[in-house]
Amino acid sequence: MKSSNTIVRVYRGSITESIHRVHLAVVNAQGTLLHEAGDPQLLTFARSTAKLIQTLPVIESGAADHYGLDEAEIALCCASHNGEAEHVSTARGILGKLGFYHTHLQCGAHEPFHAPTAQAMRERGEAPTTLHNNCSGKHSGMLTLSAHLGASPDTYMSLQHPVQQLMLDAVCAMSDVPKSQMQLGIDGCGVPVFGMPIRHLALAFARLGSPEGLSEVRANACRRIVAAVRKYPQFLAGSDRFDTRLIEVTGGRIIGKMGAEGIFALTIPEQSLGFVLKIEDGNQRAMYPAVVEALKQLSLLSESEVHELASFHNPIVHNWQGTEVGIIRPDFKL
Amino acid sequence: MKSSNTIVRVYRGSITESIHRVHLAVVNAQGTLLHEAGDPQLLTFARSTAKLIQTLPVIESGAADHYGLDEAEIALCCASHNGEAEHVSTARGILGKLGFYHTHLQCGAHEPFHAPTAQAMRERGEAPTTLHNNCSGKHSGMLTLSAHLGASPDTYMSLQHPVQQLMLDAVCAMSDVPKSQMQLGIDGCGVPVFGMPIRHLALAFARLGSPEGLSEVRANACRRIVAAVRKYPQFLAGSDRFDTRLIEVTGGRIIGKMGAEGIFALTIPEQSLGFVLKIEDGNQRAMYPAVVEALKQLSLLSESEVHELASFHNPIVHNWQGTEVGIIRPDFKL
Repeated sequence: MKSSNTIVRVYRGSITESIHRVHLAVVNAQGTLLHEAGDPQLLTFARSTAKLIQTLPVIESGAADHYGLDEAEIALCCASHNGEAEHVSTARGILGKLGFYHTHLQCGAHEPFHAPTAQAMRERGEAPTTLHNNCSGKHSGMLTLSAHLGASPDTYMSLQHPVQQLMLDAVCAMSDVPKSQMQLGIDGCGVPVFGMPIRHLALAFARLGSPEGLSEVRANACRRIVAAVRKYPQFLAGSDRFDTRLIEVTGGRIIGKMGAEGIFALTIPEQSLGFVLKIEDGNQRAMYPAVVEALKQLSLLSESEVHELASFHNPIVHNWQGTEVGIIRPDFKL
Repeated sequence: MKSSNTIVRVYRGSITESIHRVHLAVVNAQGTLLHEAGDPQLLTFARSTAKLIQTLPVIESGAADHYGLDEAEIALCCASHNGEAEHVSTARGILGKLGFYHTHLQCGAHEPFHAPTAQAMRERGEAPTTLHNNCSGKHSGMLTLSAHLGASPDTYMSLQHPVQQLMLDAVCAMSDVPKSQMQLGIDGCGVPVFGMPIRHLALAFARLGSPEGLSEVRANACRRIVAAVRKYPQFLAGSDRFDTRLIEVTGGRIIGKMGAEGIFALTIPEQSLGFVLKIEDGNQRAMYPAVVEALKQLSLLSESEVHELASFHNPIVHNWQGTEVGIIRPDFKL
């Protein structure tokens, strides 16, 4: 098991209480490894970072246009959203265009990620629905593609369903991983999830931002996805979320997406870069600090942008009482 | 940063999605290092594992006897409890013996760790109080000692307060760490917390179980604490909790205590052993699997005991929908 000395420290008072190890791969659209830390070949799951790639066939098939999905709705297809009012109504809007309801979504229900929204719902005694699930946009996109293909909406989560096969094909092609080698698992929301070396996921993101070498249909879909999340970053995540703030703070120069178990993938279209960072142990608390630090050291964020992202770069650790007891600090040199 | 190849794997489907690194120190009551993994000198915080040691002055001072604390109440002083009805009523009972109320506890309130209890409270619209805080037993013990010393109950959380000074002295003496070298921070519940190499914490636990070399007063207090948690393991943690099950399954042969940020300390009195294991990244999900595996490999648990602890040894990973998507498995050879 290859280790990494690229670490993030969790301080309590003046000493380190826990550490997180970081693996990183930065590639260009040709797949050349430009920067690395730990093991750039580390095999893990793309989780929700794949959503931007999975949205490709929703556009390429003509489904998005046939059902008139607008840019906010396309951005929501790529989201792990907060379950805020605008996310819920937008997911409902996609389903409405299909003549579907929230009961068609098979992602399951969980409380909104956005704590004030979840708290308000609890106080109203309102139970979360599938629309509040952070993946409801992705599932609505899957149903859009399914409807356009005339496939059954009942089995859209199954790997054998044409929706999942088209998404698998897109992820394989974008990441240069043969279908026979793509590792498959089940995601938090029940659909197939894709396991590959982080370097290959970085390639998929480099191509997403710089699709010049791809077919015209695919390149066009890549550009539409990037344009949609650039224009509607709040639909990619939501209030107080890093993914949204990163796009806002950089004026859309950097498009990044978190995934569960501490994985983060981003593209910088103008520099033809794909970047994937994985916290070895899967803990999200170290992910944003490591991403900001790595981007800073690679001169991909300006000083003022790093400053605007300070609460993600060096988050304060509080205890039950809200007392400040520590801080999280990256401690590495790329 | 010294690494460790002693790892716990988190599988999704058939591949490893994340890994956790483990540091371990096993010592005898003389402090001789008998077994190790990773860095046995790793400096970190004892967190709630220290509660058993912190209870020493509550007994040694005569406070516990003066106020008539029974064995269940002494066990609760050592607990990170579930906030179940019996925990709440026992904490209230200790305070009642002092003429105090839950408002004297400064630990803050949080929902019970025990999910069904928390859920039932939510359904009743009942807000958690300080009694539900997993540390309410420890804080009640602190107030018992404070009352016996005639000290102010208002400032018992302050490092300068005689309660905290006596507890610091006990932790230093038991772990052979000079007061000048003991690292201090603030715990989740607001009181001082003790940072030291895990090998030293293991020594404190070896001595707790085998106090023959200590003063008569201290040795007696050690024996009373071990006897109390052995007799009332449900007061150390609660329903479905590893700390409780470990004592039950081994018939009290092993007394262990978890702490936040992935630390676990145990004593095996009959073998004069102290054992401390720390998950480097602080994630509790890997802690119980690693503890069971290490105890198994060191022949400190029988095969049937390992079998009874199977759900802690190799926990199944479920997604939002309750589908089985993976498993956690230790992967090391000590």
